[in-house]
Amino acid sequence: MPAADSSVLDALRWVDLAGVLGNAMLGGVVARAARLDPVGFAVLAIISGLGGGLIRDTLLQAGPPAALLDNAYILTALAGAAIAFLVQVEGGRTWDRAWPWIDAVSLGAWAGAGALKTLDTGLGWLPAVLLGVVTAVGGGMVRDIVLRQVPAVLGSSPLYATCALAASSTLVVCAQLGHPTLGLVLAVVVGAGLTLLARKRRWMLPLS
Amino acid sequence: MPAADSSVLDALRWVDLAGVLGNAMLGGVVARAARLDPVGFAVLAIISGLGGGLIRDTLLQAGPPAALLDNAYILTALAGAAIAFLVQVEGGRTWDRAWPWIDAVSLGAWAGAGALKTLDTGLGWLPAVLLGVVTAVGGGMVRDIVLRQVPAVLGSSPLYATCALAASSTLVVCAQLGHPTLGLVLAVVVGAGLTLLARKRRWMLPLS
Amino acid sequence: MPAADSSVLDALRWVDLAGVLGNAMLGGVVARAARLDPVGFAVLAIISGLGGGLIRDTLLQAGPPAALLDNAYILTALAGAAIAFLVQVEGGRTWDRAWPWIDAVSLGAWAGAGALKTLDTGLGWLPAVLLGVVTAVGGGMVRDIVLRQVPAVLGSSPLYATCALAASSTLVVCAQLGHPTLGLVLAVVVGAGLTLLARKRRWMLPLS
Repeated sequence: MPAADSSVLDALRWVDLAGVLGNAMLGGVVARAARLDPVGFAVLAIISGLGGGLIRDTLLQAGPPAALLDNAYILTALAGAAIAFLVQVEGGRTWDRAWPWIDAVSLGAWAGAGALKTLDTGLGWLPAVLLGVVTAVGGGMVRDIVLRQVPAVLGSSPLYATCALAASSTLVVCAQLGHPTLGLVLAVVVGAGLTLLARKRRWMLPLS
Repeated sequence: MPAADSSVLDALRWVDLAGVLGNAMLGGVVARAARLDPVGFAVLAIISGLGGGLIRDTLLQAGPPAALLDNAYILTALAGAAIAFLVQVEGGRTWDRAWPWIDAVSLGAWAGAGALKTLDTGLGWLPAVLLGVVTAVGGGMVRDIVLRQVPAVLGSSPLYATCALAASSTLVVCAQLGHPTLGLVLAVVVGAGLTLLARKRRWMLPLS
Repeated sequence: MPAADSSVLDALRWVDLAGVLGNAMLGGVVARAARLDPVGFAVLAIISGLGGGLIRDTLLQAGPPAALLDNAYILTALAGAAIAFLVQVEGGRTWDRAWPWIDAVSLGAWAGAGALKTLDTGLGWLPAVLLGVVTAVGGGMVRDIVLRQVPAVLGSSPLYATCALAASSTLVVCAQLGHPTLGLVLAVVVGAGLTLLARKRRWMLPLS
């Protein structure tokens, strides 16, 4: 399998960090709703922004998690916590407009990048698809559990993990065909597009 | 220590996968009770069927978890989720008859296999006994936590972790005596037998 | 970076094990409050006494967790569970006097030792500070989550994670200056001193 193109990887890094910032700020927003102190903001920001990747890298066992090897990750997550602590972003116009886009784009990017890293580690298509989804939705799941909520991703909300599944599957198919770079781009397009559509039209999965 | 006999390992693999299927279906049963969507069924099936082994292998740090290296595990867990989503097994005669046996046999098999893998990794008897128990009861514990319940295994239910403790201890003693294969067989017999007896006679541990 | 002095490491090992014992007993105390059985005592003792180090070592991916390589850890945690099961320590004078000291000293020791191990693994100052804090407060956080409580460390209680942050930062500064041994001693002094002061004066972080 050829390696992904470096300029695309550079672009993806910015998308990745934007997702960390946005999700860390969301962690801060829920920390305020739960009346937590700055430690609570920081912990929920790290879990929300970095949790999915930490779980993926812990399972992959191919060295310490990416979030511990590059200080930009932890610093970005803490910046998100600080912003959310100092400014009440929730309910504001900027946040309400920007968040759905950050959420959707980072879901696609994280699902694609998680799946690609799994393939690069030498594992097969099925764990790649699975760990792509884990990268995208794992942090939010753990955040919900810490706050004593049944994870929203498990039911009763518009499609979300399903969009991550589509994104990571897209990456795996493209990578198997020899086009990992195209796969990363398409994973973002597919993941973000589906997430925005699902949110707008309130698509939900059927219950049994 | 001699390696375990391959025909016993083959048999154990089927017992293992039957345990994954049964526990994944149980994950689906509790997903329906919590009114989750198909994503919730899949996540709880994976946690219930594969969670204990994932925790064990993450702690052992001897390469990626077995459940990620052999697609049969994830596919079996997802099959369990699908069956539980499509068919309301709970309350039915087949499930009510089969589940206690699957539960009991897989508890013994998982406890024994987890202990043996820990010994094979080069760790001592105490972590082997402990990780055998974790393999057997870890997935159910995490499933309970995700659903905001104090894990049933921690109290107020018939002996369960104690049966896993007996099974993993049996394996460790036999393996130290040079009979890992016999240990695996005896672990299943001891773990399953105790679990079935404890359930029938409602044996419980004393409170303090 | 020079290695830490071995006599200080020996002393730290005893502080470490005293912290494991004390925190394991605390795990037993909350197990009784939750009316759990002996399995619940053992699980909460292991989580409380060993959880932070297990999370750190799992993230570091530099071999199996220390708690699995040296039987003294698991045995000490189980001893704490057994004592708490047999003797109702809570409310007694000895416990009420000793616990704040064990808690404070082990917080400083764990934060310092966790940060030093992270540096020794080759990671940078930021993950070292972070994993020092995780070592000190991670076990208590997981224990709270298992018992369906929002972790106390996230808010509405006197400074705690902040004291661990001061202790692990102290270690990192000293180690970078070439004095890891002094750093370990100062981490205990700073961490324990701040924790005791914060508890006495009920220092709390401001809410947003």
